[in-house]
Amino acid sequence: MNRNFKLTIEYDGTTYFGWQRQVDPNTVQGTIERAVETLTGQPAILTGSGRTDAGVHAMGQVANVHVDTRLSPTVIRRALNALLPRDIAVLSCEEVPADFHARFDAIGKHYRYRIVNRPVAPAVGRQYAWHIPRTLNMQRMTAALAHLTGVHDFKAFEGAGSPRAHTVRNVRHATFDPAPPDEVHFSIEADGFLRHMVRNIVGTLVDVGLERLSPDDVAHIRASGDRRRAGATAPAQGLFLVAVHYPA
Amino acid sequence: MNRNFKLTIEYDGTTYFGWQRQVDPNTVQGTIERAVETLTGQPAILTGSGRTDAGVHAMGQVANVHVDTRLSPTVIRRALNALLPRDIAVLSCEEVPADFHARFDAIGKHYRYRIVNRPVAPAVGRQYAWHIPRTLNMQRMTAALAHLTGVHDFKAFEGAGSPRAHTVRNVRHATFDPAPPDEVHFSIEADGFLRHMVRNIVGTLVDVGLERLSPDDVAHIRASGDRRRAGATAPAQGLFLVAVHYPA
Repeated sequence: MNRNFKLTIEYDGTTYFGWQRQVDPNTVQGTIERAVETLTGQPAILTGSGRTDAGVHAMGQVANVHVDTRLSPTVIRRALNALLPRDIAVLSCEEVPADFHARFDAIGKHYRYRIVNRPVAPAVGRQYAWHIPRTLNMQRMTAALAHLTGVHDFKAFEGAGSPRAHTVRNVRHATFDPAPPDEVHFSIEADGFLRHMVRNIVGTLVDVGLERLSPDDVAHIRASGDRRRAGATAPAQGLFLVAVHYPA
Repeated sequence: MNRNFKLTIEYDGTTYFGWQRQVDPNTVQGTIERAVETLTGQPAILTGSGRTDAGVHAMGQVANVHVDTRLSPTVIRRALNALLPRDIAVLSCEEVPADFHARFDAIGKHYRYRIVNRPVAPAVGRQYAWHIPRTLNMQRMTAALAHLTGVHDFKAFEGAGSPRAHTVRNVRHATFDPAPPDEVHFSIEADGFLRHMVRNIVGTLVDVGLERLSPDDVAHIRASGDRRRAGATAPAQGLFLVAVHYPA
């Protein structure tokens, strides 16, 4: 009996060549597909909500997979976790209607970016953060957020190599949350993201925090649509896909 | 000119055979001593505030080292961080009086133990936590803390192999702090700790949380002085030496 399962997945992206299956290297999607194939004895194709870059982590990536099985969702979740390496965990497995599609049905995503702001690079958790040794001016960075929320063309923050026809996105929410003693967590939710969009926004905001740019420069950069005016792409290792949203 | 330096050290203990220098393996102490020797060209002996077990992490281990140098503390800190592997970081270096001794002068220590309490084992941060799949009863665990604070003989919580003549310690503070969505952080401060004491206390408290022991059993176990009655030693990877305290 062919059934459709929605998987919510946590992974430590450190050793993976990103989410999406490739010819050679190790990817999260490919690793989970092999586990599903081992479990069911059938070829499996996982549909993710979208790619994550090499080195990016996830607390709540979502994918769906059609398989011919009589196993319960709970048994599938446990069996996959037993088969998967320790840096990938299936947090939940639920049966969904046959037409559920993890990518097309997604109505929003939530990302978090973790910055450690202190003179010395972190030893503990160094694989999960971007280290900025100079003190960030959080007041300036927070002021700049006003130019990034709402419905805008985010073309200036789109990475090369995977251009989208439509570059207008609705950023519903963008905040900085201090995590004492020396961390800052950037949180952003939107209806969708362009390639490298979060990392390019973080790179630009850090330039504001380091006083290389003013908060208002962010509005001009966004309006220009010119990637070359935005900051550098922040390192992958600080980025987490926290959640993917679907209609209730 | 012989000077004494106090180092505050963060490390990810995952790949180390503990703090203390041994004949063969990789230790944190030995790794820092080699860096100091490379920097100064002299043999260096680091005096730590105490050992940490293999796999235990530190956010604020303290050590002192006597070296003949004219370098400033800031230059020493930067040079050591440039020489050390990325899983060890010298957070601060300060010159202290010649008689400062990181072990004998310590008047207290603060440890934290991180538990992830949810059905599925964590993928992100799995090297920094103990995973408990069954729901812990935090009310019972918190009630048990009353039997662990104050001046008591903690012999029942002392690991084998390194007995102390005096097993009375003053636990000044012990708390559980929930870290939503699914973490619990145990924090404990005392004038000193016996070998494996924090990990044996955590193992016993988890038995209370899993309703294998009652909160009052903890008082009886402590009073018995019998290690065999306490819980199993919690895994090293969840434990962090947060800070070592010295007189102002």
